[in-house]
Amino acid sequence: MLTDHYELTMLQAALRSGAAHRRAVFEVFARRLPHGRRYGVVAGTGRVMDALAEFRFGEQELAFLRERHVVDEPTLDFLAGYRFSGNVHGYGEGECYFPGSPIMVVDGTFAEAVLLETVILSILNHDSAVASAASRMVHAAGGRPIIEMGSRRTHEYAAVAAARAAYLAGFASTSNLMAGHAYGVPTAGTSAHAFTLLHASEYEAFQAQIDSLGTGTTLLVDTYDVAKAVRTAVELAGPGLGAVRIDSGDLAVAAHEVRRLLDGLGATRTRIVVTSDLDEYAIAALAAAPVDGYGVGTSVVTGSGAPTAAMVYKLVAREDDEGVLRPVAKRSVGKPSKGGRKTAFRALEDGVAAAELVTTEPGAATPEGARPLLRALVREGEIVGHEPLATARERHLASVAELPVLAHQLSQGDPVIPTVFS
Amino acid sequence: MLTDHYELTMLQAALRSGAAHRRAVFEVFARRLPHGRRYGVVAGTGRVMDALAEFRFGEQELAFLRERHVVDEPTLDFLAGYRFSGNVHGYGEGECYFPGSPIMVVDGTFAEAVLLETVILSILNHDSAVASAASRMVHAAGGRPIIEMGSRRTHEYAAVAAARAAYLAGFASTSNLMAGHAYGVPTAGTSAHAFTLLHASEYEAFQAQIDSLGTGTTLLVDTYDVAKAVRTAVELAGPGLGAVRIDSGDLAVAAHEVRRLLDGLGATRTRIVVTSDLDEYAIAALAAAPVDGYGVGTSVVTGSGAPTAAMVYKLVAREDDEGVLRPVAKRSVGKPSKGGRKTAFRALEDGVAAAELVTTEPGAATPEGARPLLRALVREGEIVGHEPLATARERHLASVAELPVLAHQLSQGDPVIPTVFS
Repeated sequence: MLTDHYELTMLQAALRSGAAHRRAVFEVFARRLPHGRRYGVVAGTGRVMDALAEFRFGEQELAFLRERHVVDEPTLDFLAGYRFSGNVHGYGEGECYFPGSPIMVVDGTFAEAVLLETVILSILNHDSAVASAASRMVHAAGGRPIIEMGSRRTHEYAAVAAARAAYLAGFASTSNLMAGHAYGVPTAGTSAHAFTLLHASEYEAFQAQIDSLGTGTTLLVDTYDVAKAVRTAVELAGPGLGAVRIDSGDLAVAAHEVRRLLDGLGATRTRIVVTSDLDEYAIAALAAAPVDGYGVGTSVVTGSGAPTAAMVYKLVAREDDEGVLRPVAKRSVGKPSKGGRKTAFRALEDGVAAAELVTTEPGAATPEGARPLLRALVREGEIVGHEPLATARERHLASVAELPVLAHQLSQGDPVIPTVFS
Repeated sequence: MLTDHYELTMLQAALRSGAAHRRAVFEVFARRLPHGRRYGVVAGTGRVMDALAEFRFGEQELAFLRERHVVDEPTLDFLAGYRFSGNVHGYGEGECYFPGSPIMVVDGTFAEAVLLETVILSILNHDSAVASAASRMVHAAGGRPIIEMGSRRTHEYAAVAAARAAYLAGFASTSNLMAGHAYGVPTAGTSAHAFTLLHASEYEAFQAQIDSLGTGTTLLVDTYDVAKAVRTAVELAGPGLGAVRIDSGDLAVAAHEVRRLLDGLGATRTRIVVTSDLDEYAIAALAAAPVDGYGVGTSVVTGSGAPTAAMVYKLVAREDDEGVLRPVAKRSVGKPSKGGRKTAFRALEDGVAAAELVTTEPGAATPEGARPLLRALVREGEIVGHEPLATARERHLASVAELPVLAHQLSQGDPVIPTVFS
């Protein structure tokens, strides 16, 4: 039922006209990257496969559709037996993408494929928006670990998917326990101001935390006075204190002061974690500060200014009355589509990405010095593309390493490689 | 398990220090409205109560927490028996809010209340962001109905909550079927370009749609040539054609042209629905165009530039060693909190909102000419605040009608009424 009303009414009309069972090819692509971004990151592919496996209409749902007169009886019969039996190819999860990249290609009957539009786009648009922002932050952090801690700033289940997407783009861990449970993302956490305020004094609060969690814990030091808190922390935990967290003020200034303090107290190995509305720009600005890790919330789960990846799902080919697959394209002003089923390759020069090659030529061979971008995800209804999240994480690392260095400029600009259609 | 790692480790430390069972009052508030907004809209309250009723740790979850060594055995025992037994008061869903409004007040033991931080904030931040944007769009539309159709631009379950939030802020319907099923939001839909492209010609596609869905349907007229499509539509459906949808081009110009064409063909009652990246500004710009309805996607589900409401959940009072409830507040630079349990009233002058009165005075009487803003949601663990979504929709209508007219300026500015603390 994660679908739109019009998918079902179109299905009804197509069942009646007989066109519903024509073979149809839909493609997911983005007309453009979010404003000023140099590359996008595909994420959600694994979740699309999970959703596809569960995409069914149960009795409750059918009863609702009947009662509300959303569709007629023949359509309800079709939905009751719905099972996607076609093929899906797509960019590997974690792969970088560019405008026009055929990120996912769904090949089935119109009836089977049209119903998947909403859920496929929901997942890819959300997860890719998060991963695309996260990837920039990871680069800005230059090897320092980032904890994703934005669950409270986004829908409760979007939070779980966001933690997964940030992790595959290179974040070290998440605060979200469900993401740990569902996807194996490492979880981490520090402490909140409420914990300090709950106790009669900061001293008591730190003592309680150390008693329970050990000296390796991370103490939050900005509830009252940062310098005083740091002294109390080291007094209680000793120089082996794991880390301190600073969540307010000028983080660069505070980090330098806290580092000096910690070193003066002999806690030279105590790490400094900073949080507080960080985004890729703020992280980059802290590159020279003695920071050992970042916690990022709002900006990563909301795509740092681009909360959706603006991907669309368009019919690019369908069988005609003679059973021949024909390219189709709309000609809407400003939003035309390119007809024909596509495949894509990343052209490389000396190991550096040079262009996104997108072709409608059937069975096109991989051009020399290029690598193919589409992999099989679903074959005749059977999911064949499942892979561990670690594989997507590694793929992202490799894909982003291959981009020209300009890809990492945070300033606004054009896509770092051109998309070449043929 | 929709909670953060640190909520559980804080719980563990507080269980050990003995502070876990102290009475604690947490409050949800926003330090500011999204940039330039004049008011915010509370949404998600009903969903918070649903989430609270389901907030439990099952065997699978406990096994995960044990295996990952997230918390120790006494904490796991506490979680296994977790049940919120405290009280929650909150702004009525649909109510307008301002900086510092105590949107939700959670009063329980620290252990019971701290665990709810993440899920309460997730829901309120997401749903209120959507409702706050939706409310502006509804006003800009000036009585013309708006369909929410942004499911594909946000996480698949966030989409369901977004449809609910947009509806309570005044949208007419949603494309999201699950929102119809789960929350009774009216669902609606038109047709996609894929349906036209599936058929051999626009003529055949329109015929198929009319055959199946009747002449009252909405035909999409911008796949190829708008004028030609409108003529075909009226030729096939007759002057009783329900509506046409335009999804590209200069919508104001196109709407005028299509209206002229329809009127010339005798289809004077055929409605014109426009879609295509509309937000409150684009809707306002179409006020003088012959448009009968809007479809809004991306901008409403992403909060039109403010995808999260930036609400926080802060400890404002807790029992001390003598069992006396004491106000507490942090003093973090730039992010201080105000201690003490709060209640709030909307001061009115001649029926127009004049100020948000927030007081920490226990049992404060409603000031003359003001109305109280907090209502009971949960009493000793029992949910007492459930209400139909229609009630929240009516409350929003009344609350927004009470605001000074300046509230509806789309230009950036300050909150339309001041928050007065006492």
